[in-house]
Amino acid sequence: MARMAKTAQTAAPARKAHGVDADAKERNLKRLRRIEGQVRGLQKMVEDDRYCADILTQISSVHEALRGVGRELMRNHLKHCATVAIRSDPATAEAMYDELVELMHTHSR
Amino acid sequence: MARMAKTAQTAAPARKAHGVDADAKERNLKRLRRIEGQVRGLQKMVEDDRYCADILTQISSVHEALRGVGRELMRNHLKHCATVAIRSDPATAEAMYDELVELMHTHSR
Amino acid sequence: MARMAKTAQTAAPARKAHGVDADAKERNLKRLRRIEGQVRGLQKMVEDDRYCADILTQISSVHEALRGVGRELMRNHLKHCATVAIRSDPATAEAMYDELVELMHTHSR
Amino acid sequence: MARMAKTAQTAAPARKAHGVDADAKERNLKRLRRIEGQVRGLQKMVEDDRYCADILTQISSVHEALRGVGRELMRNHLKHCATVAIRSDPATAEAMYDELVELMHTHSR
Repeated sequence: MARMAKTAQTAAPARKAHGVDADAKERNLKRLRRIEGQVRGLQKMVEDDRYCADILTQISSVHEALRGVGRELMRNHLKHCATVAIRSDPATAEAMYDELVELMHTHSR
Repeated sequence: MARMAKTAQTAAPARKAHGVDADAKERNLKRLRRIEGQVRGLQKMVEDDRYCADILTQISSVHEALRGVGRELMRNHLKHCATVAIRSDPATAEAMYDELVELMHTHSR
Repeated sequence: MARMAKTAQTAAPARKAHGVDADAKERNLKRLRRIEGQVRGLQKMVEDDRYCADILTQISSVHEALRGVGRELMRNHLKHCATVAIRSDPATAEAMYDELVELMHTHSR
Repeated sequence: MARMAKTAQTAAPARKAHGVDADAKERNLKRLRRIEGQVRGLQKMVEDDRYCADILTQISSVHEALRGVGRELMRNHLKHCATVAIRSDPATAEAMYDELVELMHTHSR
């Protein structure tokens, strides 16, 4: 995955969003910085041999926080990228439906 | 949540695991350091207004990586903490069944 | 829930889809009839005191089958209902974005 | 899957639970009969071309009801089958840890 991310960031011309609401972007950056702190907290808990159930509960709250980011991104995606595609020609709209269904499915795992 | 974590780490005497396999611990620390890197990668993607679907895919792989940590912890929890409880008296065993069912339920969300 | 379903089916004029592809509808009815059979199979497994892990595996495949129905419905929803809303005025489009994000979130649990 | 279930029910000598609480069994049968009714309700909604979002919400409540069955089964599994294994020799206990971790992982999807 780290490798995939690298490829995506360096090799290919990275795909850009059609539009991003400034507020949503700020909220997501804030969430992600907090998530980074939570992940460092998890490392400390593992190092300290903390009770497994307590670590699992903390992991669960990182999942929840990530879902918050995903939710905001999905809304932005629908509002900007998806809307452009859906208002354009039928083939482009069809491709967008497929992408969205795929995203939701991946997302729901 | 940040607050909850703080309480758990400072106020109360933190609960410890009954036993932790050294290998499992090392694998989890390695996973968590990689996850920290992925979360920083996500911040950069958001800052660069990257295509929402690409960010969502990356989020999905952080969820998957976190599940790997949870899985390892759960195995350790069963092997050490749960086994001690289940081999002890019925009331302690019953409390452990409840904790485990609760954990799996939270975990499955 | 049974109560909620009843309310939806009897009290209020039930909301209709803006369009349904005949093929997708047929596939979903077929899936749902098979799911009904799986649920009856589960009842038999429980009655026969079958091994819990085997029943849990079977439950897992009912979840997967339901996700197949949800996926097909979501695609139809995007193609018909959502597209009508997104191509209409901004307020209607905004309401649809909210509904979709909500649906995906519920759906991912 | 229907095929798999058939194989499991007819060809092989079906594995049995080590013990089943009568109350838990009754609760699960009741839940499963209600779920069967919900699935038939879904068929009717699809036949009537009901609004996709309303069907998706109903599907979501079937998932939730199935999780209730899984939860009860898991508790029974821990209390009876898993406890027998964990109190027996180390190799049998180890095999049970693996089975449980696998079950929770499958279950969380």
